[in-house]
Amino acid sequence: MADQYAQSGEDKSTGIPAIRWDEPPEGPVVVLLDQTRLPAEEVELVCTDAPALVEAIRSLAVRGAPLLGIAGAYGVALAAARGFDVEEAAVALAGARPTAVNLSVGVRRARSAYDAALARGAGAEQAAEAALAAARQLHREDAEASARMAEHGLALLGELLPGGGHRILTHCNTGSLVSGGEGTAFAVALAAQRAGQLRRLWVDETRPLLQGARLTAYEAARSGMAYTLLTDNAAGSLFAAGEVDAVLIGADRIAADGSVANKVGSYPLAVLARYHHVPFIVVAPVTTVDPETPNGASIEVEQRAGYEVTEVAAPNVPVTGAGGGVPVAPLGTQAYNPAFDVTPPELVTAIVTEEGVVSPVTAEALAEMCDRSRGVAIG
Amino acid sequence: MADQYAQSGEDKSTGIPAIRWDEPPEGPVVVLLDQTRLPAEEVELVCTDAPALVEAIRSLAVRGAPLLGIAGAYGVALAAARGFDVEEAAVALAGARPTAVNLSVGVRRARSAYDAALARGAGAEQAAEAALAAARQLHREDAEASARMAEHGLALLGELLPGGGHRILTHCNTGSLVSGGEGTAFAVALAAQRAGQLRRLWVDETRPLLQGARLTAYEAARSGMAYTLLTDNAAGSLFAAGEVDAVLIGADRIAADGSVANKVGSYPLAVLARYHHVPFIVVAPVTTVDPETPNGASIEVEQRAGYEVTEVAAPNVPVTGAGGGVPVAPLGTQAYNPAFDVTPPELVTAIVTEEGVVSPVTAEALAEMCDRSRGVAIG
Repeated sequence: MADQYAQSGEDKSTGIPAIRWDEPPEGPVVVLLDQTRLPAEEVELVCTDAPALVEAIRSLAVRGAPLLGIAGAYGVALAAARGFDVEEAAVALAGARPTAVNLSVGVRRARSAYDAALARGAGAEQAAEAALAAARQLHREDAEASARMAEHGLALLGELLPGGGHRILTHCNTGSLVSGGEGTAFAVALAAQRAGQLRRLWVDETRPLLQGARLTAYEAARSGMAYTLLTDNAAGSLFAAGEVDAVLIGADRIAADGSVANKVGSYPLAVLARYHHVPFIVVAPVTTVDPETPNGASIEVEQRAGYEVTEVAAPNVPVTGAGGGVPVAPLGTQAYNPAFDVTPPELVTAIVTEEGVVSPVTAEALAEMCDRSRGVAIG
Repeated sequence: MADQYAQSGEDKSTGIPAIRWDEPPEGPVVVLLDQTRLPAEEVELVCTDAPALVEAIRSLAVRGAPLLGIAGAYGVALAAARGFDVEEAAVALAGARPTAVNLSVGVRRARSAYDAALARGAGAEQAAEAALAAARQLHREDAEASARMAEHGLALLGELLPGGGHRILTHCNTGSLVSGGEGTAFAVALAAQRAGQLRRLWVDETRPLLQGARLTAYEAARSGMAYTLLTDNAAGSLFAAGEVDAVLIGADRIAADGSVANKVGSYPLAVLARYHHVPFIVVAPVTTVDPETPNGASIEVEQRAGYEVTEVAAPNVPVTGAGGGVPVAPLGTQAYNPAFDVTPPELVTAIVTEEGVVSPVTAEALAEMCDRSRGVAIG
């Protein structure tokens, strides 16, 4: 069934969750806050089947590594609850975007619960319930993980920057729009704000899709933070002026050696941070660490359509089709448009997860932390 | 008198000069190719007086350091020819934008010619002719300087990169749209192309005003170059992949110590280039060197309106008013929007001028080159 758009009521204008499972009379649905419409409009996107959710993932209506994991798990539960082919749905969901490991981890988790229930002799309905329970559990764990990352991250900032009054630079979007909780890097900034320790959040606009300008600024404004938006390339001037105390970013995938794949533009910030002796801190749940990816070179980086660069998307137009924005470059211009870049571990000051802080970042320390974690075992 | 817009005829569609002096029956005018409309439309902007030209400079309809110098000189000549107050016009023109030294140099040159003629006992009409002659001479010299910069820059590339097949990354716009000739950094890339030595031109889109996407891509396409557009923050991935052999940029002002003020985003490229052992080459006419600016810290950096960041300008709307684009950030978002950043001399591999190549970049070597130059004397 095709997805539907529903304008949200005014009463929801400040608290729409990024994702939720709903059970209207006509059957279960996954309801997303359509992030391609923010900040101009808060619109809910109702997915009644896995293909609609796959399309929502591809169009970035739902995005951000941890939230993608939750979406993937709910997608499997949705296919099961609606009686669709669960294996087919799982394959389509896991492959909707290539880089974020959380997506396939979330899909696998709900599917394992489904398969295990069937193997125990459960009927289709019970197996679907098991898949949903697994998705809900992942959602809950993610919210708890956010809280613990924020705690560990705040403690780390206190150690690295004992003077307080942090001026933090962040890239892309890592708050409640990407998470079952308050997010990753943004959750740390939020914790600093609550502790009276956030002087300013510098928000990279994050071209090409402007998730910083559209989404992080939206989250910062809603949280009452002192924040300032800048073009990605203006960060250099801030570093040079001594206006950045720390960089906090999320991650889409962390290789076993500690290489970090994150939104394109993260690596230049890491190089700038190193040149200016500023801590570069990656905040991500343990599920982001992929022990089967040995190093940065083995991370597959998604190459996205050139029109994201050659056209400027009007914010009210979801980025779903070929183009749809206003052309800014001459017709026929070819674009290089990687979604992510890879920062090598030697440029990462620390990786903060719900399990604690890894610093310095080494394969051994990362493996040890993964071993400690309940959720991920080194394969 | 207010400026007028005139749609250019079809026959001019591939060869409109960035600036020209014209003498229609109703009096002399300065005709600009309105760069805020490119690449969608090639529209001429006719300035009948200095205030119209000041507005065109402020709105970036005419831009780029060398071209600003020529525009400033023509502006003085225009005020003189039309019988307006030349001193008032000169002050307004020189102050239209703060960072580009060429602008005030160009203004001073035409004004000196005007004043000298008056001092020699010339009438107003003859003095106006002297101002125009000085402007035309500056225009011609700039075209010649372009050709010599291209020659010196190509030779330097040959020395630094003996393998040939250069993959050059550039930022902002430095071709015939900013110059009386073929430009600065872009002229070097063009020379490499003519020599069969340009494998690819990587074009930074150059936020916030997208001069790379709009203007450099337009110049590259018209020149038949192999070029690829990228978001500014994707340059890091190119460096990491070994896809950049050299960075070539222009300059808006070079301090006596060799610090280079150029479009925001240049400094991060310099840091990336250093980290990856890639030459970072600045190409600019000698007039860009300002001996009265001792170092980077003394360069005044223009802070531009926040709406350039918080809104996305549709290319058909000239960026002249407060906003006028499509908001992408939440209402009330504050933006940090410096027009330029400053790269210290230790990160600059070489400065190429029409007089030759300065490398390594030191205050002494730069002063020596300025002394050799006819146009600029160290004060």
